[in-house]
Amino acid sequence: MLIGTVEEAGRRSPLGLKAGARVATLVSLTLTPLVITDGLARWDGRSEQVPCDGWAILFARSIAAVLPDDEDPQLSLAVLDVCGAPALTARVVSRYVQERGRVGDPTPVRVAVIGGAGKSGSLSLAAARRAGAARTVGVVPVAAERDALTAAGLASVVALADARDPVGLSTAVTTALGAPADVTVVCVDVPGCEHGAVLATADGGTVIFFSMATSFSAAALGAEGLAADVTMLVGNGYVPGHAELALGLLRAEPGVRQLFTARIAAD
Amino acid sequence: MLIGTVEEAGRRSPLGLKAGARVATLVSLTLTPLVITDGLARWDGRSEQVPCDGWAILFARSIAAVLPDDEDPQLSLAVLDVCGAPALTARVVSRYVQERGRVGDPTPVRVAVIGGAGKSGSLSLAAARRAGAARTVGVVPVAAERDALTAAGLASVVALADARDPVGLSTAVTTALGAPADVTVVCVDVPGCEHGAVLATADGGTVIFFSMATSFSAAALGAEGLAADVTMLVGNGYVPGHAELALGLLRAEPGVRQLFTARIAAD
Repeated sequence: MLIGTVEEAGRRSPLGLKAGARVATLVSLTLTPLVITDGLARWDGRSEQVPCDGWAILFARSIAAVLPDDEDPQLSLAVLDVCGAPALTARVVSRYVQERGRVGDPTPVRVAVIGGAGKSGSLSLAAARRAGAARTVGVVPVAAERDALTAAGLASVVALADARDPVGLSTAVTTALGAPADVTVVCVDVPGCEHGAVLATADGGTVIFFSMATSFSAAALGAEGLAADVTMLVGNGYVPGHAELALGLLRAEPGVRQLFTARIAAD
Repeated sequence: MLIGTVEEAGRRSPLGLKAGARVATLVSLTLTPLVITDGLARWDGRSEQVPCDGWAILFARSIAAVLPDDEDPQLSLAVLDVCGAPALTARVVSRYVQERGRVGDPTPVRVAVIGGAGKSGSLSLAAARRAGAARTVGVVPVAAERDALTAAGLASVVALADARDPVGLSTAVTTALGAPADVTVVCVDVPGCEHGAVLATADGGTVIFFSMATSFSAAALGAEGLAADVTMLVGNGYVPGHAELALGLLRAEPGVRQLFTARIAAD
């Protein structure tokens, strides 16, 4: 995705953008025709965001969000970059909450977010709680992230575990939640987290894979091999209203802002 | 998976197997400790099923199905090999049917099966119809498969299309069904079908990926890039009752038996 200023909007464009508006595109750059005219002269090769001069074309099905005036564009970009995760998490968690309400099942909805201190992870934790999750655990790999996430106050419990260790991960989640998770959200970009996520999830539960390091076959064959009756979702980065939802979480949840600001400062 | 005879069952095994029973394991061989004692001497290297002598260990979470006495074991094995596909298809389709019934929406549920003449595809078509799909399309790549699937009578319409051509595939599906599919089931083992499957699916619809050639990132970034609000499922090979459901389809649907028998004869 990129941040830029609208130069011109096609007469029949359904995106509702006006010339001069400052927008972020919510679509992979692999799908965005883009010309870079400055050879990335201002980039030192070390930051995750890359400054450049150039221009791009957005299609009718490209999504773009107008950047809020009252937020640092870099902060907005970081939030919008992962805005599909909290939106899909909220949708899935609220379905469990509604379904239990409908059948009068008092069991609390439990949610685990693997990589809870990261960008998509912290937003997903906040979204899960607002969607009605009664108990949440944020799983992190190191003590510094544990302390940061605990201070942010976004999870009922913060647990330390290596997401690549299936038994270690599922034990950490089950211990923290008092039972396996109804919804497990995978937000860590390391390979090999599929089996642990499946084992950490209750029968009838759902695993949402947002990590691009997810192996399709490891998930499919792993769940089969474990005889785990879990629904596994490919984390679709597009959910209607995702940009507004994520920016709303940034505004409403001081813990989210805290983690994002610290991350941008460290970048 | 493998076919074999139970030698011994652990006292605390929950699998309910008895010594002497002829069973098929419903789990990937990559997850089954297996010793082969004949060096595959009887295999000519050309068949999809491999005869061998040896022994294997099944765990408490390994699933195994007792083979029916009245069916050719090779036929049963071929059906059980893909039994997760019709079971998950049935589950997803019936949710759409129930949900429309609940809210009084008379729109028929439409299902597309990409690779409809294959093993998992033909079973999924039969399962979708029995689960209440009002209109189904089986998409196949060549005329011979079109004729075989038409003769089997498992789909409302059979369409010829290259699943790797997104616009061609979605046009074929939409034309055949009169609208995009509510549920699209991908059963073709070639890479590059993700975008076509997403485009062929209605907003609010579901794509079930059973193909091990599925690229996780192509699905995730493709749906995002197309701003497609579709649910994408990793095809879990385990659904409770999957073996019985698939063998039931073999018995009840002459078209399924016809396609499987022809495929085994050609192998």
